Amino acid sequence: MTEFQRLKGFRDFLPEEMEARREVFDRIEETVRSFGFREIDTPSLETLDLFLVKSGEELVEQTYSFEDKGERDVTMVPEQTPSRARILADRKELSMPAKWYSTSKRWRYESTQRGRLREFYQTDIDIFGTDSVQADSEILAVTVEIMDSLRVLDAVEVLVNDRRLLEGILESYGISGKEEVMEVIDDKEKMGAGEFLEELGELGLTEEEAENVDELTSIAGPIAEELEKVEDLAPEGEDAEEAVKRLRELTESLESYGVEENVKLDLSIVRGLAYYTGLVFEVFDTEGELRAVCGGGRYDDLVGLFGGEEIPAVGFAIGDAVMEELMRREGVWPEEELVTGVYVLPVSGEVRAEALEIVEELRSAGNIVETGLKDRNVSSQFDYADSINAEKVVVVGERDLENDEVTVKDMESGEERKVDRSEILSVL
Amino acid sequence: MTEFQRLKGFRDFLPEEMEARREVFDRIEETVRSFGFREIDTPSLETLDLFLVKSGEELVEQTYSFEDKGERDVTMVPEQTPSRARILADRKELSMPAKWYSTSKRWRYESTQRGRLREFYQTDIDIFGTDSVQADSEILAVTVEIMDSLRVLDAVEVLVNDRRLLEGILESYGISGKEEVMEVIDDKEKMGAGEFLEELGELGLTEEEAENVDELTSIAGPIAEELEKVEDLAPEGEDAEEAVKRLRELTESLESYGVEENVKLDLSIVRGLAYYTGLVFEVFDTEGELRAVCGGGRYDDLVGLFGGEEIPAVGFAIGDAVMEELMRREGVWPEEELVTGVYVLPVSGEVRAEALEIVEELRSAGNIVETGLKDRNVSSQFDYADSINAEKVVVVGERDLENDEVTVKDMESGEERKVDRSEILSVL
Repeated sequence: MTEFQRLKGFRDFLPEEMEARREVFDRIEETVRSFGFREIDTPSLETLDLFLVKSGEELVEQTYSFEDKGERDVTMVPEQTPSRARILADRKELSMPAKWYSTSKRWRYESTQRGRLREFYQTDIDIFGTDSVQADSEILAVTVEIMDSLRVLDAVEVLVNDRRLLEGILESYGISGKEEVMEVIDDKEKMGAGEFLEELGELGLTEEEAENVDELTSIAGPIAEELEKVEDLAPEGEDAEEAVKRLRELTESLESYGVEENVKLDLSIVRGLAYYTGLVFEVFDTEGELRAVCGGGRYDDLVGLFGGEEIPAVGFAIGDAVMEELMRREGVWPEEELVTGVYVLPVSGEVRAEALEIVEELRSAGNIVETGLKDRNVSSQFDYADSINAEKVVVVGERDLENDEVTVKDMESGEERKVDRSEILSVL
Repeated sequence: MTEFQRLKGFRDFLPEEMEARREVFDRIEETVRSFGFREIDTPSLETLDLFLVKSGEELVEQTYSFEDKGERDVTMVPEQTPSRARILADRKELSMPAKWYSTSKRWRYESTQRGRLREFYQTDIDIFGTDSVQADSEILAVTVEIMDSLRVLDAVEVLVNDRRLLEGILESYGISGKEEVMEVIDDKEKMGAGEFLEELGELGLTEEEAENVDELTSIAGPIAEELEKVEDLAPEGEDAEEAVKRLRELTESLESYGVEENVKLDLSIVRGLAYYTGLVFEVFDTEGELRAVCGGGRYDDLVGLFGGEEIPAVGFAIGDAVMEELMRREGVWPEEELVTGVYVLPVSGEVRAEALEIVEELRSAGNIVETGLKDRNVSSQFDYADSINAEKVVVVGERDLENDEVTVKDMESGEERKVDRSEILSVL
């Protein structure tokens, strides 16, 4: 006998577990569809070079990349953006804006830890083809609505920033080596205050400059309020001013959507990836225990790298692992239990034919119906009906059938009653 | 500029295409759920040795198998049965019968051709834990109902057989080398009559024996009728007799389900895979143009090979590629078009805030709503609304708003009318 193991960082979902996860996916999907986002699907395997465009060689080490039997370098996709860019570069006739979503599996070869798996589900949501603030605000509004649909809105903060605002202020402070400074800022939440200043010092910032950066990246609060404080810091006539203007318009849109209270400005949000060109945002649990629940931003220059024309884009991604942790912590993960409408119970083999006709009738009417597939006695069948959470049991017995009746038992109340055979559908 | 290619045998699905495919998946899912099948999910990547149990080394050449960065031999799963067997061997506490389904992606490294892709969707449906005929008939009944839900029931034949029946009769004919003969029979539908006899001759069968086999495997027709003809051929006291008994019971169950007319007995159906232990079946288009639409059977010995106790099983699989071909041929592939409830059209930037409030209100009420994300004039916005098949357009204009009104246009009839701002929800 051999024993087989599942690969580390991969998951099985049994029916009860999948029922809950499907409920979560359904709520996300219903929300994004109400915004007019459309489902797309792309391959799970792509050529490696498609992924090198955006992420460079280091990606190879963090993915399931290999040479296929036709000697092509391929990778199991760690994200969907490059595939979307490939489609956009190829299909110039697509009407814009394109609002796309997909919930599908992604793979990363990483050391597994809490909230980080090797196979996970991710929902990617993008708007392509417009650089308008309206698109930014629609992306933030759908983020907030998703959190609401998952009952975690009160347990998270949506933190926004514009990289150009932060960069502009840093420049006005006379700080050079922006890229490195941004990287340190990106890691700020993982460091103590002392460590942060030290790291900035190592980059050559004076003590005063480091403290200015610390102060600046500590600005966080309701977007409308904080923006007022910050806008005087932004140097005029620069990208930073444009960023402030957009953030102001964004705030107005968010107000119209009725979600501005859920969005905070936080100058320490820069996102690690350098391809963001404007808005960046992340959603964190308010207790600060977990990794980011989701994150995204505007990336107007990326699609052009894939060989097509430049197509502005704004979007974000939510994985299922951190979201599950958060929902469990908040006690709002859906109940992991089976749902069954009716169990049809033939008391003996003699009445099986009649029982199957009832089963067929109830299923055709849209009910979830199970029946005895093994020859089991009445009490074992009731146990099974219980184990699948059947709401009702229809007992089909010989004597009842002689009177053209069956017995319907309500499994919650325990109440039983005789029902005319022809009236089953209207009773259930 | 680089141009990137999708891998051969892989597909992209744009929104309109995915809308249709999702509709197909939803109909299948709704049907299997009404039978009380429960969704499960398993990894897309498993250790290679798990797949060697069932399929042997030849599998390696036909799959995306590779060595991962931790030097494990792994494979992108070509089917789900081994993963299910792994779970069953590991989780002895699972209550039986277990009725599982999953629609997910599978991968095969094969030469691509019509109906055969390298990445495809497949729905796997199994009942584990009972060797009853009731389970066999439930599997056939759900197969028929799926075909019905996809509007192709009249375009297909569900052909059943029991390998033991055919084997028993062959033995009673004194034919040896059963395995090889079964393989030739499995290929019969691809051969001309002469070729079939020739191949059997090459296996050492006399001309008369070969003709007997030809005649036997030409038996095909309504299950109840054909069974009567065949049962006299089955040698007594053998597996073949048991097979006839089960087929007879199966026929009765199918009658109770009301699907016996859709099921035919066809002694040439043996399925290539030797692990089937009883019922085997395949669904073909009646015009005989396409590969099998789906196929399955009973495999009582397989799960035990994975290290757990023996668990009887019956199940089948439907892929999306051949099904799509069939549905397109029959003209029942769902329309590939976007579905949108409402497009909210702000006539200028001045009324955007008000427009967004209306958008939010309509979305909250469950409508699919899009609005202007770019600053476009009214006529471009109507074009866009048209391109997304919006049913209604709500025109938000300054003058209307002064009277607390908006204009609602029905896009099909072209009819326009003024509606009180506060009554939008009840109107749409």
